[in-house]
Amino acid sequence: MLNTLIVGASGYAGVELATYLNRHPQVNITALAVSAQSPDAGKLLSDLHPQLKGIVDLPLQPLSQAADFADKVDVVFLATAHEVSHDLAPEFLAAGCVVFDLSAAFRVNEESFFTDYYGFPHQHLDWLEKAVYGLAEWQDEKIKEARLIAVPGCYPTAAQLALKPLIEANLLNLDQWPVINATSGVSGAGRKASVTTSFCEVSLQPYGIFTHRHQPEIAAHLGIPVIFTPHLGNFPRGILATTTCRLKPGITHDDVAEAFHNAYQDKPLVRVYEKGVPSIKGVVGLPFCDIGFAVKGEHLIVVSAEDNLLKGASSQAVQCLNIRFGFPETQSLI
Amino acid sequence: MLNTLIVGASGYAGVELATYLNRHPQVNITALAVSAQSPDAGKLLSDLHPQLKGIVDLPLQPLSQAADFADKVDVVFLATAHEVSHDLAPEFLAAGCVVFDLSAAFRVNEESFFTDYYGFPHQHLDWLEKAVYGLAEWQDEKIKEARLIAVPGCYPTAAQLALKPLIEANLLNLDQWPVINATSGVSGAGRKASVTTSFCEVSLQPYGIFTHRHQPEIAAHLGIPVIFTPHLGNFPRGILATTTCRLKPGITHDDVAEAFHNAYQDKPLVRVYEKGVPSIKGVVGLPFCDIGFAVKGEHLIVVSAEDNLLKGASSQAVQCLNIRFGFPETQSLI
Amino acid sequence: MLNTLIVGASGYAGVELATYLNRHPQVNITALAVSAQSPDAGKLLSDLHPQLKGIVDLPLQPLSQAADFADKVDVVFLATAHEVSHDLAPEFLAAGCVVFDLSAAFRVNEESFFTDYYGFPHQHLDWLEKAVYGLAEWQDEKIKEARLIAVPGCYPTAAQLALKPLIEANLLNLDQWPVINATSGVSGAGRKASVTTSFCEVSLQPYGIFTHRHQPEIAAHLGIPVIFTPHLGNFPRGILATTTCRLKPGITHDDVAEAFHNAYQDKPLVRVYEKGVPSIKGVVGLPFCDIGFAVKGEHLIVVSAEDNLLKGASSQAVQCLNIRFGFPETQSLI
Amino acid sequence: MLNTLIVGASGYAGVELATYLNRHPQVNITALAVSAQSPDAGKLLSDLHPQLKGIVDLPLQPLSQAADFADKVDVVFLATAHEVSHDLAPEFLAAGCVVFDLSAAFRVNEESFFTDYYGFPHQHLDWLEKAVYGLAEWQDEKIKEARLIAVPGCYPTAAQLALKPLIEANLLNLDQWPVINATSGVSGAGRKASVTTSFCEVSLQPYGIFTHRHQPEIAAHLGIPVIFTPHLGNFPRGILATTTCRLKPGITHDDVAEAFHNAYQDKPLVRVYEKGVPSIKGVVGLPFCDIGFAVKGEHLIVVSAEDNLLKGASSQAVQCLNIRFGFPETQSLI
Repeated sequence: MLNTLIVGASGYAGVELATYLNRHPQVNITALAVSAQSPDAGKLLSDLHPQLKGIVDLPLQPLSQAADFADKVDVVFLATAHEVSHDLAPEFLAAGCVVFDLSAAFRVNEESFFTDYYGFPHQHLDWLEKAVYGLAEWQDEKIKEARLIAVPGCYPTAAQLALKPLIEANLLNLDQWPVINATSGVSGAGRKASVTTSFCEVSLQPYGIFTHRHQPEIAAHLGIPVIFTPHLGNFPRGILATTTCRLKPGITHDDVAEAFHNAYQDKPLVRVYEKGVPSIKGVVGLPFCDIGFAVKGEHLIVVSAEDNLLKGASSQAVQCLNIRFGFPETQSLI
Repeated sequence: MLNTLIVGASGYAGVELATYLNRHPQVNITALAVSAQSPDAGKLLSDLHPQLKGIVDLPLQPLSQAADFADKVDVVFLATAHEVSHDLAPEFLAAGCVVFDLSAAFRVNEESFFTDYYGFPHQHLDWLEKAVYGLAEWQDEKIKEARLIAVPGCYPTAAQLALKPLIEANLLNLDQWPVINATSGVSGAGRKASVTTSFCEVSLQPYGIFTHRHQPEIAAHLGIPVIFTPHLGNFPRGILATTTCRLKPGITHDDVAEAFHNAYQDKPLVRVYEKGVPSIKGVVGLPFCDIGFAVKGEHLIVVSAEDNLLKGASSQAVQCLNIRFGFPETQSLI
Repeated sequence: MLNTLIVGASGYAGVELATYLNRHPQVNITALAVSAQSPDAGKLLSDLHPQLKGIVDLPLQPLSQAADFADKVDVVFLATAHEVSHDLAPEFLAAGCVVFDLSAAFRVNEESFFTDYYGFPHQHLDWLEKAVYGLAEWQDEKIKEARLIAVPGCYPTAAQLALKPLIEANLLNLDQWPVINATSGVSGAGRKASVTTSFCEVSLQPYGIFTHRHQPEIAAHLGIPVIFTPHLGNFPRGILATTTCRLKPGITHDDVAEAFHNAYQDKPLVRVYEKGVPSIKGVVGLPFCDIGFAVKGEHLIVVSAEDNLLKGASSQAVQCLNIRFGFPETQSLI
Repeated sequence: MLNTLIVGASGYAGVELATYLNRHPQVNITALAVSAQSPDAGKLLSDLHPQLKGIVDLPLQPLSQAADFADKVDVVFLATAHEVSHDLAPEFLAAGCVVFDLSAAFRVNEESFFTDYYGFPHQHLDWLEKAVYGLAEWQDEKIKEARLIAVPGCYPTAAQLALKPLIEANLLNLDQWPVINATSGVSGAGRKASVTTSFCEVSLQPYGIFTHRHQPEIAAHLGIPVIFTPHLGNFPRGILATTTCRLKPGITHDDVAEAFHNAYQDKPLVRVYEKGVPSIKGVVGLPFCDIGFAVKGEHLIVVSAEDNLLKGASSQAVQCLNIRFGFPETQSLI
């Protein structure tokens, strides 16, 4: 049994982690923690999220430093702000824990990424170097050896799972940058109060055009430039990404189908559609990324859909845990 | 032309007031104001509410005291917090303005109402005495003479318009208190950021059971006890109230129909259904209260629906203005 | 292993049954069936409901008569129209199957119930006599012996679980009939195309006032008269019932709390709130009925919430199966 | 006063037409009509759409042929199926009426457009030749002279208003086709019952990839190839289009701003944002198309939003009427 701590357990990703880990036969939830300053400290998780009443009734313990918990746990999930993960992860790692970080603090091995897009200088370049990017379907060999797994962002998961097979199979004409239009449910913005995410203010709208920090994460890990335009949608959870690409001359529908087949035929948590395209409804509450596509001439449109809190965050983190510790990849996920 | 000021113009009710008054042929919007401390001060109303771009592009001016504006305007709409209205209304009245107050500060002529339910002692009992409750269909004679009109709350409007004809016609067996179950859209909670009203947290749920402050407002003006249970619904605007009553022995469907007919046949903004019952969809964006009912034996169920921001707030305020100044009752409303 | 058939598997309740039974360790889904006339016959369940891709990819087999499947299965779930269940259940029972019927065809042991409210004369009074009403928390002893379990309706489950402890403890003053106001998500109307349930037409609205057929089901099983007013809400799933009752003189909050505690302390799928009241959000996707309440003087308001497709249909059916066959009551449900 | 007929008045676009024309000071609604076979024939419009109770209570008269109404009216709005408009428009035109057709029957002056995309051969090539495409901001001179105005589709309006100023100003590098990703509310699918548009089935999803018939409409009128990917969104009304283009080398943000300014500075129903981008919320219920944009290097993203039933259908039809008859362009629209 792995003794496990979830830090930031009161947020939406934390709740999903608690739900999955609670039913995981090889995991024991040792504690749930929130920042010592949080007004949620001391409450039961199920008081904030009544769906968990009778399922996970553990208290949210205040955490001031990693040492409060580090010697009691084998594994730590950080569902915390980027700066908090940046500070806490090295402490837990130093104490011997395996860390799954759901923030961006260790996602891109480039100093400038943090100063340019996240507004803080990175102080742990050694761990940044060692961190493994947890795009589970593409990184399993590295994840098996990792001490620190940087779970990808929600948009980057949907975008990369759609594009990576095409790049690996060398099908794209990159004179035209892939155009990724993606729409996320409101939970992507987290649980804090904000006029922007209040019920009466939300409607379909793009944001962060040319400036969203998931664009460099996608581009860095794919190794190609992309145009990424995120939208806020009026639904609580889910991401749908519609990606328009140019194919190399002569590339056909069957070539694309083969690339996806080869990439994902053995991957239980990516579902490639033989016909039709995915929808938000088909993935909400589920740990899958669904992918469909259409080809016309040299034009390719790939549609990928996932639950932003699951395959875009918590279920992918647990999938990485399963890979890391040799459990079945879908253990407790489906 | 009436020179008019809207205080609290940046909130949801303020926006609706600005929209109506902007198209009112006898009204000039002299200024829009917000509290001097508001972060919205200095912005254009249409920057906060882009639906008004090109329609109402006026700035939100900071207001510290009534004297900043009182000598420039004939009429003031207060879409402000209860305590703010309580302080500002007497200042504007002293300067000779006619005041339409959308808060609860002058709704019930009883000192204890404010200490018990609103948490502040009332300092202006003289104006409380003179204030006219603006339930437009029932108070028109008094509104014509009023200096201070206290526009009713959203739930109280829906509840009273449903029950008052029955009480006036003496049809109810009051051994059983009418049971008012009402559901409001999220805009009823205002525009401030709050986890409770954030998109991902809202779902159908009762609140304020036996303790909501609209219960005493309803009971005081109807003169009967009622059980009032408000619910938050997952829609932006609208209120639906389902009221279950006991009829006196021998009272029939036709008696009820006649009571509603007599009450509202000359009232253009209450629509009584001959068959069927109203829905939220039928009233959103409109200044009506729709009423339907069904009778079985001694049991009567009345369903009333309105837009909480309109007949439950802003359109009723403008309706009161029309009555007060002798304009057609529906001027600029339909 | 129980060999199991789901008839009507393409509807919303059928999908939930398939999901639960697919992960049930003592159950084998032998076949999914739909009416031989259905346009869905021959398709995969996961083609209609893509969330099940890779999870339940079984075909929807056409069923003309029970004999097509009866000798291959031990257990049958009927998620079919009332008339279809009425005809099929006796055939499956005659073949020795245990039948869980999610329709109303065997819910009330009274001939007139069917002619008055469902428009057909009942032809199987012997089975109607033997059928056990599957309100799981209150019928477990009878369910253990039953051949035919009539799973309660969605509204009746929420209403009865709220009221039955109060009636059993003799707390209610029945001079006033309990007033049950309930709101259901749109999935309660089934999956067939209809203008009424189309996206642009749905809004909060009462329907079937004084005439809904769940009223006699509730009244018959509780043994008291009730006023039941259902509403359609603008959300896909969930039921919230707000029930207003009169207490006998002298009955206190603690008496009510004790009644609920006694009734449900050993029942894992009813969650009684010590403070606050439930919401739709807290139960969607879960097999619970959540109950909260408030008392003021002689007035009691009970709030119950459930997922209409789960505790109001499919999870309660599986809960009955678990009870019937001696499996843990929550097996595969949480 | 123009005597006016609306055919197809019971659908969503018809309701909006009735609302606008009812308040138009130079228009008299002579009759509302539906197909003689429609189950709605004989009902009041306000029975189907209760928001119109007391506003437009006219009956829906059965129409078998144009002659039933043609001699009583000056102007006809056809909110009918493409084939119906195709047959009716010439009959009304022969009788001397001015016809505003909201279907696609006269939108593109190319025979193959109808056989390829709409599945019927066009029989009225003379009228197809004479028809004026009613993209109001760009066609006003022609509209003033027209007998038959083909009001553009909802997606084509949003897409063309975004792209046409850029094409006219010669700013685009067309080696890369503009990528138009657009999401429409469910009302775009009309009011007929369908599982696809039922409340429980709708979620964000692309459809008609590479095959939607608005693509050739857009391409034909812009004179350039485009990639157009429509999506169904989970909201009742509104369209948001995010269009990604390549600029010619050296073209700057200011060049783009100037192109939009020049195109729309005198057009009251297109609002160009100086900062920020539009949302669905900002245009629902309003007759505007809102446009915003961002430039980075040679990449341009234009965001356009409109109410699909208004600027995408009915308000644009009334705008065309205003232009055609010399009324103020926004008469009765704002």
